[in-house]
Amino acid sequence: MGKPLEGVKILDLGQIYNAPYCTLLLGYLGAEVIKLEPVNGGELLRKRSGNEGAQFPFLMLNNNKKCITLNLKHEKGKKLFFELVKQVDVVIENFSTGVMDRLGFSYEKLQSLNPSIIYASGTGFGSTGPYKDLPAMDLTIQALSGIMSITGFDDKPPVKTGPAMADFFGGIHLFGGVMTALFKKAKTGMGDRVEVSMFDAVYPSLASSLGYYFGHKEQPPRTGNRHGGLAEAPYNVYPTLDGHIAIFCVNDKHWANLMNVMDLIELIDDPRYSTIPERVKRIDELDRMISDWTSKFNKKDLFQLLNKNNVPSASVQDLDDIHKDEHYRATKMINEIDHPVHGKIIVPGTPIKLQSHDDFEIQPAPQLGEHNWEIYHQMVGITANEFKSLMELQVI
Amino acid sequence: MGKPLEGVKILDLGQIYNAPYCTLLLGYLGAEVIKLEPVNGGELLRKRSGNEGAQFPFLMLNNNKKCITLNLKHEKGKKLFFELVKQVDVVIENFSTGVMDRLGFSYEKLQSLNPSIIYASGTGFGSTGPYKDLPAMDLTIQALSGIMSITGFDDKPPVKTGPAMADFFGGIHLFGGVMTALFKKAKTGMGDRVEVSMFDAVYPSLASSLGYYFGHKEQPPRTGNRHGGLAEAPYNVYPTLDGHIAIFCVNDKHWANLMNVMDLIELIDDPRYSTIPERVKRIDELDRMISDWTSKFNKKDLFQLLNKNNVPSASVQDLDDIHKDEHYRATKMINEIDHPVHGKIIVPGTPIKLQSHDDFEIQPAPQLGEHNWEIYHQMVGITANEFKSLMELQVI
Repeated sequence: MGKPLEGVKILDLGQIYNAPYCTLLLGYLGAEVIKLEPVNGGELLRKRSGNEGAQFPFLMLNNNKKCITLNLKHEKGKKLFFELVKQVDVVIENFSTGVMDRLGFSYEKLQSLNPSIIYASGTGFGSTGPYKDLPAMDLTIQALSGIMSITGFDDKPPVKTGPAMADFFGGIHLFGGVMTALFKKAKTGMGDRVEVSMFDAVYPSLASSLGYYFGHKEQPPRTGNRHGGLAEAPYNVYPTLDGHIAIFCVNDKHWANLMNVMDLIELIDDPRYSTIPERVKRIDELDRMISDWTSKFNKKDLFQLLNKNNVPSASVQDLDDIHKDEHYRATKMINEIDHPVHGKIIVPGTPIKLQSHDDFEIQPAPQLGEHNWEIYHQMVGITANEFKSLMELQVI
Repeated sequence: MGKPLEGVKILDLGQIYNAPYCTLLLGYLGAEVIKLEPVNGGELLRKRSGNEGAQFPFLMLNNNKKCITLNLKHEKGKKLFFELVKQVDVVIENFSTGVMDRLGFSYEKLQSLNPSIIYASGTGFGSTGPYKDLPAMDLTIQALSGIMSITGFDDKPPVKTGPAMADFFGGIHLFGGVMTALFKKAKTGMGDRVEVSMFDAVYPSLASSLGYYFGHKEQPPRTGNRHGGLAEAPYNVYPTLDGHIAIFCVNDKHWANLMNVMDLIELIDDPRYSTIPERVKRIDELDRMISDWTSKFNKKDLFQLLNKNNVPSASVQDLDDIHKDEHYRATKMINEIDHPVHGKIIVPGTPIKLQSHDDFEIQPAPQLGEHNWEIYHQMVGITANEFKSLMELQVI
């Protein structure tokens, strides 16, 4: 059986995280992704690669793509771009609002060249509404969307999430939008304009806090690692010899199991602790008691011990733990590959697993312009002389 | 033009957030989603609706679906389930690992009834690997995946993100997987088995921190709201009269603009502050200075003032701000609808916007079993007498 997206051609103008994550997944699933970058230094994320460690995000997100350069401001560059547009199924971009139009690449223009084109835009805030011209940075979205207001501790300011939530929620929703349009095209032959904003994309993930807000008519407290509604205890992150562990008892059975492991079975039926409301009343006392106990263990050993005894828990893994995590290796989410320039590097696999396509190969991120000759010769019919001249003019 | 997913039939066994978010988007895009729930009280999220505010997440995530009840453990229930499976394109579930197999609903079994079936599973950790039997809770994933290790302040324990990141990253990747399989089916007529784990789905969003880790060979510091690599300043969240505001200067121009607004133009070229490395050295001093200034403003006014002066900033909105946010209303991400039982409620729209489908209607989440007669009569040919008998037997 062929790859799921066999034969699908994508012209990818993506930069940084948002659109590149979308096209990474498209490439992994078998689409031909042609990544188009500026002539001097490539897209923003590739350009950053000078700093220590800054090369890695680019190498993580641009596997299974073909990389070409093109000066979209040059008249000859625009002509080449239009030739490519005629031959692909999808154009994907996440420039700032207005850039595509100013380049002369509006949806209407591309549609006039290729009537069934799918035109997909990843944005910060969308193309309408009062925020449409705000800069689309992860921190901006996290502040304005309410994410920060519900993250962190009550005695500290609101805090952003470490992961680039907004960028990646944007990128994966964009993937969903492109696939929806590709499905419609397969059924009807018609193209579409797809738009996903990061600001929209993060909103549903606030469901629990929004529920609290609608029910109580007030902002939920920032409870750190305690239960969002402070309705369960013990439920927190506790110190260990080598880090932290999360432990959460969401019913009396978990409580009994925990007291059993801690060798405190006399507390199971003690009226001060035997019900959730009583435990919540004594939440500080319980957290101290459990912290004293967890401090004597290594997090991994304790995680295994609690698991065996049916107490919900999870060790708080740091990136070194993740890097060695056997589960991520088993699910092929973490892969070591050989990069011709950068040597052995770690790159992500795909969270979207199809049984028919579970052994696809990961091709390392190309060098800038690596596929110029292949693409411009095969797709646009450029000759060797023309190719040389376009290079000299810095069009490609 | 028809809806993008016109004619696609989904049998949805989803519960809580993960799979229900996936099928919410499928329904919004025009698929017929038949949500199947247990006879007594419905799925877990509906059952929780007794508590204050706890009804809202269910009402947010189950619009544009048809709700039926079915006892999957009853022999007559299994028979009805198999009849439905024969007539749909996709079965979606996010039960704990092993539940579907124990019910007798393995991929192989359903495929034998409907050779082109798409069988999609949202899991915590997937069906293979050492963690496969761990409970799939958002907090477990956040701890084990490294999210917590990079979120929060250095003088506090690692902290979870307020949003249910793992559940929703799982759900939206599952949507992407289902759409990929639907596209392949449209092209080849073949079904597939789709699997997405929450643990896999969150990994790519750690790209910046992973880059730091690969480059420095050590865990990045938890920097709260400061720049992840402490490479830029000022870059933080500052107090205002009514909350907080994020301000971040990522180049010297932003710095000059900020000093201009603060009426401190003499500091722009002061050698103590004129370059990023110098400002980073004096990060605490700068943060104090800016805090003193921001404390005199309301966050919304200051946001407007900084914006007008090209200083990147964003007010930290709480859920009350979000609720009134004009942008979310303009993009139809926040919608007020009339629910026949719950009255006026707020529900999310879709972040995936297709120009051909920008005015679809939102239908409120149905009552438990609301569509039993319609579905069982039309799809399985149940008569009124059989229907009555199945109700009495608590099969439906």
